[in-house]
Amino acid sequence: MENIRHRVGIRAPRPAVLTKLTTLDGLASWWTTDVAGDPEPGGKVEFRFGRPDRYVFMEVVDVTEDGVVWNCVGGPDEWVGGVVTFDLEQLPDETVLKFTQSWRDPVDFMFHCNTKWGVFLLSLKASLEGGEGTPYPRDLQISSWS
Amino acid sequence: MENIRHRVGIRAPRPAVLTKLTTLDGLASWWTTDVAGDPEPGGKVEFRFGRPDRYVFMEVVDVTEDGVVWNCVGGPDEWVGGVVTFDLEQLPDETVLKFTQSWRDPVDFMFHCNTKWGVFLLSLKASLEGGEGTPYPRDLQISSWS
Repeated sequence: MENIRHRVGIRAPRPAVLTKLTTLDGLASWWTTDVAGDPEPGGKVEFRFGRPDRYVFMEVVDVTEDGVVWNCVGGPDEWVGGVVTFDLEQLPDETVLKFTQSWRDPVDFMFHCNTKWGVFLLSLKASLEGGEGTPYPRDLQISSWS
Repeated sequence: MENIRHRVGIRAPRPAVLTKLTTLDGLASWWTTDVAGDPEPGGKVEFRFGRPDRYVFMEVVDVTEDGVVWNCVGGPDEWVGGVVTFDLEQLPDETVLKFTQSWRDPVDFMFHCNTKWGVFLLSLKASLEGGEGTPYPRDLQISSWS
């Protein structure tokens, strides 16, 4: 088992960060504008990225003030069965978001997705700090893969 | 052993990417402007990031057209002894840069450095694609840690 791991500090209160992870409008503001479903615990959320084969289905496993856990139930083979966590910690000056995604193997696509998750988490950060989020299709292209 | 892993595609020929990794001017254009030393095989390069305790010393283990290998010989405890690799592959439309850094343990600082390496590698990419690199001290701040 391998893990993608990121950490960003966001100058916004923890509930505001949580809203970015637990509402369709919130998710649309940083990951992809093409999102649908139910982001509450037990729900399923569909994220799409243009081409018909570019989608991710996440089952919402847990939501607390400390963060969110998803289980990937559809999308790229390498993603399905993986767990995605967003841990939130309120510090005096910022909310720290720690992110993980589990992978079976460190394939090239994992390298790519690691870099791309960083781009999207910084998009989330920007969207809460007076800047603009850059969800798909306005996301930064990091290679010919996306 | 844990690994940080990134992948970016750069619309520039492989020798141009290699120059960014093997010359002081190249390194100064994307990682930190405060760089000194000898970036040739067997040499040692010092990278500094402002505060006196923020530095990294890298020993250059290998340089070929396929990439660069460094061994961290000074800097944060968590970095020292770790190996950093930049693998370069020339594809028809882009040069693919795959990056790794080995860590003993997945501490919070590893989460942070993973996200920050992505920022710097995208700085490298931008510096070769007609944009501007954002080396320290112009680097994007991802949290109160830097």
